Amino acid sequence: MAVMSVPEPVHSLQNPQVKRLVRLKSRRERDAEGVWLVEGARELSRAHEAGVQLRQLFVCPDLYSDEAREVAGALQDAAGNVTVLGRAPFEKASHRENPDGLLALAEPFRPALPEPGEDTLVLLLMGLEKPGNLGALLRTADGVGVDAVLVVGDGTDLGNPGVIRASQGSVFSRPVAGLPEADALAWLRRHGFRLVACTPEASTVYWDAPLTGRVALCLGSEHDGLPAHWREQADVRVGIPMQGQADSLNVSVAGALVLYEALRQRRAGRGA
Amino acid sequence: MAVMSVPEPVHSLQNPQVKRLVRLKSRRERDAEGVWLVEGARELSRAHEAGVQLRQLFVCPDLYSDEAREVAGALQDAAGNVTVLGRAPFEKASHRENPDGLLALAEPFRPALPEPGEDTLVLLLMGLEKPGNLGALLRTADGVGVDAVLVVGDGTDLGNPGVIRASQGSVFSRPVAGLPEADALAWLRRHGFRLVACTPEASTVYWDAPLTGRVALCLGSEHDGLPAHWREQADVRVGIPMQGQADSLNVSVAGALVLYEALRQRRAGRGA
Repeated sequence: MAVMSVPEPVHSLQNPQVKRLVRLKSRRERDAEGVWLVEGARELSRAHEAGVQLRQLFVCPDLYSDEAREVAGALQDAAGNVTVLGRAPFEKASHRENPDGLLALAEPFRPALPEPGEDTLVLLLMGLEKPGNLGALLRTADGVGVDAVLVVGDGTDLGNPGVIRASQGSVFSRPVAGLPEADALAWLRRHGFRLVACTPEASTVYWDAPLTGRVALCLGSEHDGLPAHWREQADVRVGIPMQGQADSLNVSVAGALVLYEALRQRRAGRGA
Repeated sequence: MAVMSVPEPVHSLQNPQVKRLVRLKSRRERDAEGVWLVEGARELSRAHEAGVQLRQLFVCPDLYSDEAREVAGALQDAAGNVTVLGRAPFEKASHRENPDGLLALAEPFRPALPEPGEDTLVLLLMGLEKPGNLGALLRTADGVGVDAVLVVGDGTDLGNPGVIRASQGSVFSRPVAGLPEADALAWLRRHGFRLVACTPEASTVYWDAPLTGRVALCLGSEHDGLPAHWREQADVRVGIPMQGQADSLNVSVAGALVLYEALRQRRAGRGA
């Protein structure tokens, strides 16, 4: 273990490092600096295990949870740079109601896309607005075992700590890639994926659509769904039966239904 | 239209009515008074349409959204009692980040349980903690067309405005009943429901379980799932395949998967 002198904690909310952290709550600022914000013991451990480089770790021992206390040493050894914050600046920089005292600026995680096989299942998410929905979809994608997730468009980015948290760290557990829309489409077309658009006005019920083979399931934003050019270029459009007052489900629920239907069909096809 | 004198708005945060509204943010206080808190133009309109009696309506015209301005008159006519609040007390009483200026104390909604038919599908929710999850499940239950939802146990109650909001008002669109656990079980047993417990350790995958006929799907809380006595007394235990790092899905996602599988099987059984 390296012997470290304990630096003086930063207590001022006017400290430039604290102000920078607060600025980095916005996607535009994160994009401009090319950095992700990762917060929390579990999330940072998953990131570290996935090989994500932690540029700067901010710690507030006064706020440590039991789990944070356990992993803080290893994260400090791994980080390029450690800054101790007092409670007030940490809480200001944090994205949580009850922060656990660990927050880092990290290199964006850019996993390579897999070489697709016969039965590769990809989830494409376009312009989701709410970190909770994007994160929930990543958690479900992990559960169903998708081969890759492509995140495109404006809206929420993967470097948002709310996304990482709602995903329960799944953003680091399999190929989840943020990339320009045109690159995503080119990759899908080059590899002959069948594009399945999930869209409320579709007449085909999702369980009646063939979802085996090389399939990319495409979901749009909470308010607007998929843009017209994605709905039109899709090979299949599927919808979910709505039997009540509401005209749509939450996007993270809709996505889960179609993803797990794809798994059901794949297992049935294998006679499992 | 009734001619009303415009009362003086309440501006003090120390006003007893404002303090009471803030106290009613807790379930215990709502239960003690036997009252629900319903907030928002859409939610209040749904409640009113469903015949829910509004005991006292609180309005803050400075905060009105377009939709709130449109429905405020009808709600004021329907409410027993209208109080005008200034911006600060309304924001203090509100459960939203961006309140729309409408909030009411309402009689609890107690719809009668339906007389079960051959194919009646019921959702039983036990002890959910997060209003967002309970609300999302009510929205999905509306989408799938369940015949009733039984809400039992501690945790979040139906009178929580966060639940009503996340449900998009679905709490008022079909029989959703909060009742004591023993009453729920007695009703289900008396009517010969097959109890299907959704629980991670089940060896039967949910799509392999028969979910047609008179079925009650039972889901437990986010952290603990269903208590042992519910898992044991269930007729069928079903789980969801987890192929990644995570050991479970969000409860609102898990519930949606099993509910829509029940619908799929019912339609397939009818040759639809």
